[in-house]
Amino acid sequence: MKVYQANILFTSSSTHFDVYERGYIAVDGCGIIQGVYHTLPEDFAYDQLVDFGDKLLIPAMNDMHVHAPQLGNMGIAMDMQLLPWLNTYIFPEETKFADEAYAETIYHSFVSELWRHGTMRAAVFATVHTPATHILARAFNEAGMGALIGLVGMDRHTPATLCNTPAEWVAGMQTLIESLASMPLVKPIITPRFIPSCTPEMLRCMGEMAKQTLLPVQSHLSENQQEIAWVHELEPEATCYGDAYYRYGLFGQTPTLMAHCCYTEGEELHLMREQNVCAVHCPTSNCNLASGIAPIRKFLQTGVQVVLGSDIAGGHHLSMFRVMQYAVQMSKLQYVSSNSQYPFLTLSEVFYMATKAGGAFFGRVGSFEPGYAFDALVIDDHGLSPHHLIASSPIERLERFVYLGDDRHIQHRFCQGQEITQP
Amino acid sequence: MKVYQANILFTSSSTHFDVYERGYIAVDGCGIIQGVYHTLPEDFAYDQLVDFGDKLLIPAMNDMHVHAPQLGNMGIAMDMQLLPWLNTYIFPEETKFADEAYAETIYHSFVSELWRHGTMRAAVFATVHTPATHILARAFNEAGMGALIGLVGMDRHTPATLCNTPAEWVAGMQTLIESLASMPLVKPIITPRFIPSCTPEMLRCMGEMAKQTLLPVQSHLSENQQEIAWVHELEPEATCYGDAYYRYGLFGQTPTLMAHCCYTEGEELHLMREQNVCAVHCPTSNCNLASGIAPIRKFLQTGVQVVLGSDIAGGHHLSMFRVMQYAVQMSKLQYVSSNSQYPFLTLSEVFYMATKAGGAFFGRVGSFEPGYAFDALVIDDHGLSPHHLIASSPIERLERFVYLGDDRHIQHRFCQGQEITQP
Repeated sequence: MKVYQANILFTSSSTHFDVYERGYIAVDGCGIIQGVYHTLPEDFAYDQLVDFGDKLLIPAMNDMHVHAPQLGNMGIAMDMQLLPWLNTYIFPEETKFADEAYAETIYHSFVSELWRHGTMRAAVFATVHTPATHILARAFNEAGMGALIGLVGMDRHTPATLCNTPAEWVAGMQTLIESLASMPLVKPIITPRFIPSCTPEMLRCMGEMAKQTLLPVQSHLSENQQEIAWVHELEPEATCYGDAYYRYGLFGQTPTLMAHCCYTEGEELHLMREQNVCAVHCPTSNCNLASGIAPIRKFLQTGVQVVLGSDIAGGHHLSMFRVMQYAVQMSKLQYVSSNSQYPFLTLSEVFYMATKAGGAFFGRVGSFEPGYAFDALVIDDHGLSPHHLIASSPIERLERFVYLGDDRHIQHRFCQGQEITQP
Repeated sequence: MKVYQANILFTSSSTHFDVYERGYIAVDGCGIIQGVYHTLPEDFAYDQLVDFGDKLLIPAMNDMHVHAPQLGNMGIAMDMQLLPWLNTYIFPEETKFADEAYAETIYHSFVSELWRHGTMRAAVFATVHTPATHILARAFNEAGMGALIGLVGMDRHTPATLCNTPAEWVAGMQTLIESLASMPLVKPIITPRFIPSCTPEMLRCMGEMAKQTLLPVQSHLSENQQEIAWVHELEPEATCYGDAYYRYGLFGQTPTLMAHCCYTEGEELHLMREQNVCAVHCPTSNCNLASGIAPIRKFLQTGVQVVLGSDIAGGHHLSMFRVMQYAVQMSKLQYVSSNSQYPFLTLSEVFYMATKAGGAFFGRVGSFEPGYAFDALVIDDHGLSPHHLIASSPIERLERFVYLGDDRHIQHRFCQGQEITQP
């Protein structure tokens, strides 16, 4: 048993921070938290005490929507909306992942960059290329980090070089299921690009696989108006975009992540709640692609679960702390424009989304309650407040780090109990 | 004459970037640009050629609305709107600047932090304290950086510890005018906090001083609805918030910066145009304080000049590159919500705001045209693109730096021709 001492903060619920000032957290040999304490119990047996002093110890980040092959597109080409942006910038880049050497280089950088920004687990879109997708899974596995790895299926309205057939997708998934069985923290996820890119046959194959394997599903939903109109044309019998996935068994029949949901309301919102489909809020991406902002407070009031995603390269930055900022800020703009009808998101709410809510897709991950995996970051916020003249509580220090800090302030990173050094 | 070689980018107009790949810029002994060249003219006489290789050379940033005493409030207390936030967090902190030792520490940190983020000139609010305001001016002067220094006037609806009388403000300004006469890059600016904090007598004194000295003016305008309603109560004869300043000679009678303008429209917008009043767009602050977003495209279409401000600690970050990002992103949300009526801002437009448009308040500053002061940053963007596998143009590299870079990528900083090392 190892014990870590620090200023411990986490969100067992979204309503508040659990704070243990100069508290203790005990982690067993499997990386599972045994307890968190204000004072270490008398006669508590442990092998090692690691004292992080006055630093902050928080759960690591979970990025629940991110496109690994788009790493090189980050921060450029911020002048288009979704559909032309995909055709002009993204699809040509993704085509390069037919080349395994290219995939090797970019995917290792991708895992390293996630690590740098404190993200220890992610739900990832790869491309249609099976060999490259294996490379991505191995990169996570070798780093000791967690992932849901999505071999993308897409077989229409896409350049031929970026299409696979349903049979190719099924075969690729089978190899992934086999090979990932030996990777404890890396699992496959069923990944239709989005309805416009998938024929009914592709969607049927995917729903069938979800039913047989109980694997989770991830895709995109109601990101922008042009896309929604297109889905209505393509799937006229579906009552809403979400229903188009539902009819194929891809909307909550197994655990499901749907990114964006900027225009989800009415029937679609209720279908999400009934089916326990999780909305992945990607506010940086939704700004950059001029998509619009999902009504997150309304989702929460309706009882729809919300997690966060960086969605690079729609999003411009991998840091989930940056994504948290935007989630709060965008909710404030909605608060104003709704004449205060929808209270804005609090720091504990967005922190919960990026930790415990997202972590649920990886098991017991994202909190410091007993039984949870010890996924953690040590934050050294020295230098973020001028000369320490202004006294700050641990929560204020965390807030300041979220708004002002960066990878320089993340001193240690743990995943499932193991300290992860530069992958 | 010194000559610098690099990939040179600037915005002589807002519509596009002027790009000189591996170009040359010649700067005379007074720090004034003599020319910018694709190829150095034959027989061109110079003393020294400094080659920055493949790096980017761009104009330095101008922050046109920033509260120096709020440095310690940055990144915390993001849970209130303007008026309660001022009373709960900001005014207690500003009170501390009665203590000169405290002001010395914070103001030197402030100048150093501006420097770190590549801002070489700023229009700054200090507090009501004359000695502390002198300290702020000296800090800029010693650093060799430029500033408009605002001794704040406020004499109502404010804690007594943060009020000055009109006579105290006038006396303080006179000492500043005298002592700043010997500081080539630091000048005073007339600074009413905002209408609710200033009695008619204070505003009359300020307008009188503007008329006599021709000094510029800075203040806040139409930041949020509650504040606007309050101004209508306080100044019932004014036809709009802007008109309340105008009646006292503080709205374009001399060069004027008005921060926020989130709800400026109709008569106020036309008064701004007629009076050539400059809007300081502070999008980070307007998000954080749930103020709303100024309709910047409409301002530009109307012919109102727009510059950018970090507005810490309403804004959470001093980087003007971060502010540029938000300016583009918020304009994209307005583009969507207006059904594409207002095209979103381009990178060259927001770059122009942060360089040439803001720089105009300091003389010929913010561009690389002949006759302009050489205020410049050398950007080393190595590492921002994975393994340089993806070829990028200078404009793409600049865009990537704006979205992904930080102070680590700013390698050199020049103000008025002098390289400024850590102040």
